[in-house]
Amino acid sequence: MSSDTVAVIGGGPGGLRAAQGIADIGHKVVLVEKQRYLGGSPITQKYYGLTPRGEPAQPQIQQQIDLVMANPLTEVRLGTEVVAVDGEAGAFTITLRTEAARDETFECGAIIIATGFSHFDPGRSTQMYGYFEFPDVITQPDLEAMLSEQRVLRPSNGEVPERICFIQCVGSRDRQIGNEYCSKVCCGVASKEATELREMLPDSKVLIFYIDMRMYGYWENEIYWPAQEKHHIQYVKGLITEVLPKGDRLLVRGEDTTMGRPMEVLMDLVVLSVGMEPSPGTRDLARLAGVRQNKYGFIDAPGTPLDPVSTDREGVFACGAALGPADIEDTVSSAAGAAMKAVGYLRSRAVAKAN
Amino acid sequence: MSSDTVAVIGGGPGGLRAAQGIADIGHKVVLVEKQRYLGGSPITQKYYGLTPRGEPAQPQIQQQIDLVMANPLTEVRLGTEVVAVDGEAGAFTITLRTEAARDETFECGAIIIATGFSHFDPGRSTQMYGYFEFPDVITQPDLEAMLSEQRVLRPSNGEVPERICFIQCVGSRDRQIGNEYCSKVCCGVASKEATELREMLPDSKVLIFYIDMRMYGYWENEIYWPAQEKHHIQYVKGLITEVLPKGDRLLVRGEDTTMGRPMEVLMDLVVLSVGMEPSPGTRDLARLAGVRQNKYGFIDAPGTPLDPVSTDREGVFACGAALGPADIEDTVSSAAGAAMKAVGYLRSRAVAKAN
Repeated sequence: MSSDTVAVIGGGPGGLRAAQGIADIGHKVVLVEKQRYLGGSPITQKYYGLTPRGEPAQPQIQQQIDLVMANPLTEVRLGTEVVAVDGEAGAFTITLRTEAARDETFECGAIIIATGFSHFDPGRSTQMYGYFEFPDVITQPDLEAMLSEQRVLRPSNGEVPERICFIQCVGSRDRQIGNEYCSKVCCGVASKEATELREMLPDSKVLIFYIDMRMYGYWENEIYWPAQEKHHIQYVKGLITEVLPKGDRLLVRGEDTTMGRPMEVLMDLVVLSVGMEPSPGTRDLARLAGVRQNKYGFIDAPGTPLDPVSTDREGVFACGAALGPADIEDTVSSAAGAAMKAVGYLRSRAVAKAN
Repeated sequence: MSSDTVAVIGGGPGGLRAAQGIADIGHKVVLVEKQRYLGGSPITQKYYGLTPRGEPAQPQIQQQIDLVMANPLTEVRLGTEVVAVDGEAGAFTITLRTEAARDETFECGAIIIATGFSHFDPGRSTQMYGYFEFPDVITQPDLEAMLSEQRVLRPSNGEVPERICFIQCVGSRDRQIGNEYCSKVCCGVASKEATELREMLPDSKVLIFYIDMRMYGYWENEIYWPAQEKHHIQYVKGLITEVLPKGDRLLVRGEDTTMGRPMEVLMDLVVLSVGMEPSPGTRDLARLAGVRQNKYGFIDAPGTPLDPVSTDREGVFACGAALGPADIEDTVSSAAGAAMKAVGYLRSRAVAKAN
C-alpha cells in the first residue's frame, strides 16, 4: 500500500460504490468499516425496500458487497476504526484500531469519507411526540425493521395495527432544534413504507401528515401517485402538535391546514419520520482529517454544485450522506464522483512527478 | 481512436464532467456537441445564477469547458451530430455529420449519452396561461436570460415590473399532458430567480403559487428560508386556473388552497415554471444507440437506484437530465458515475482479453 492507494472510510452504499469504482478502474483501495460487516444503514437498520421501486434492500446491498469483496485490488478492513490521519495529500498515513485495540498504519494518496448519517433521535426534539413514553410511537427505521421481519405489530400489545399514521419532518425543517435543512428522503420513505404497510396489512388505514410532499422527480409518479390511487393512502397537510394516550390507542392532535381546522385522530401506531443528522463517524472523520464541517456538522463541499465531493482539504473527498441529506441514488452517484476525483488526483500527481 | 476510447454525446454540464473525469483518469474521450459551443443549457439559455448558492453560471461553466479543452486526452467535436451508432459494446462505430454535411466515423468502446432535457413548451399544455397571447407571460428560462442581461422589463411596454408572480408545475405533475413526474428543480429555480429579482428590483413584490414547495435537502435552508425571511417573497399554496388581461396588467385567477377561497391578483409579469422533458437529442440518441426509453421519452436506467447510469444496452451509459429531471449537482454526480462505469467496462474487457 502506498501513495497510489485510495482509502475509503465507511462501508455503506457510498463507500461500497466508491471502492468498487476505484478498483474497477485499476487502482488499489482500502475500505475501512467500524462494524464487523459491510452495508451500512440498510443492513444495520434492516431496511426492507429501496426507494423508489421497493426492490428488497438486503439482497441488493449484498450484491454490492460481493462485487467489492471479489475485487483483488480491494482490501477490506472490518471491525476497524480510523483513529488518526497524518501526513498530507499524496502521502497520508492512516492509523487504524481494531477491536483488539491493536494499532497499525497504512499509507494512501487520497481519502474518501463515506461515513454517512444517523437518524434524528426524537428524544432530542422539543416535539418528541411521546416517543419514549408510548411504545406505539415508533420511527421510520423501527418500522423498516418490522417490515423486514414481516411482523408489523403494536409494540404495546402485540396486536396488528389497524390505523397507522406518519408524522413528517421530525428533526428537519426545525429551527428550534437547529436543523433548518430538509432531510430530503423522509417523504419518499414514508410513502414507500405506507405502501408496504398497505400491501402487508390490506385492512389497515394509513395516513401521512405532512408540510410539503417532497416527492421530487420520478418519486412523484413512481411512489406518490400509486400511493394515493392504488393504495389509498391518505395525505393530510397538517401540523401535529401532540400525541396523547387515549384508552389503548393514541390520540394525534393538530391542525389540518388545508381545511383550516383543528384535527384529532385515534391511531394504533404512530411513525415518526425522523430526519438525517451527521453520524458520529462523520463528525469524527471530519475532525481527524481536518476538513471543514457546515453548521449542522455535515462535511462541507465548498465547490458545490459543480464539484460536490471535494472538501476544503487537498486529497480528501466525501460522498453520500456524510455531505448532507441524500437518497440512495444520490449516494451512489456522489460516491462515483468522489472515486473519480480521488483517482484523478492521484494520477495528476503521478504525471507531475514523471515530468 | 479505438476501443479504449469513450464517446460522450452532449457538451452540457453532464457531458463536460464525464469527459473531464475520463481524461483525468487517463482514458481517451471524444466529446461530440451539436452546437458550435460547449456548455449546454446554462449557456444556450443564458442562465444567470446556479442553484443553490447563486454563483454566476457563465464563468462557472466556462471553467469546466476550459478544463475539458486543456486535456490532451480529449477530442472535442463541435457543430457535429451523431447520425449512426453501429457495431457493439467494446467496438462501436459512430458516424458523425458536421455542419458541412460531411460524414465521418470513429470507433469507441463505450458511449455516454449526455444529451439532457428541453424545457416544457407551454404551447403544448391545456393550461397554457396565455403564454402565446400575452407578452408579459414568460417562462423561467426567459427570465433567466433577462436576469443575465440585467434588464428585467415587461415585454409589453418596456417598463420595470412591480408585481411579479411564478406559477409552478407548468408541464409537470400533470396527467392530462402525460407528464406525471415532478420536474424536481423548478421550485428551487423559481425561488432562486425570485431572490435575484428582489435583489435587482428592490421595490418589486414577488409571489410564488405552488402545490408543494419541493425544497429538498439544503435548498430548504440555503434558498427557501432566506427567500421568505430576508427577501420577503410570498409563497401561496394555490391552484392557478387562468391568466387574463386587465387594463395593461394581467389578472391571475385561481384558488388559495390554504385559505380555501378564490383568489384574484393583478400582476405585471407572470413567470411560468416550466418543467423538463427529454431533449430532441435525447430521443434521437436513444433511438440511434438502441436503448430503452421510459414512457416519457427519457432514457431508462433499469438498475436504479444502485446503478442509476447503465442503460439496457451493454457499453452504453447515460447521465444527467437525459435520464429524467435532475438538478445540476445530480447531473455532475451521475456524469461521474457514468464515466466511471464506462472506463470500468473498458478495463474489464481489456483484462478479459489479456487473460
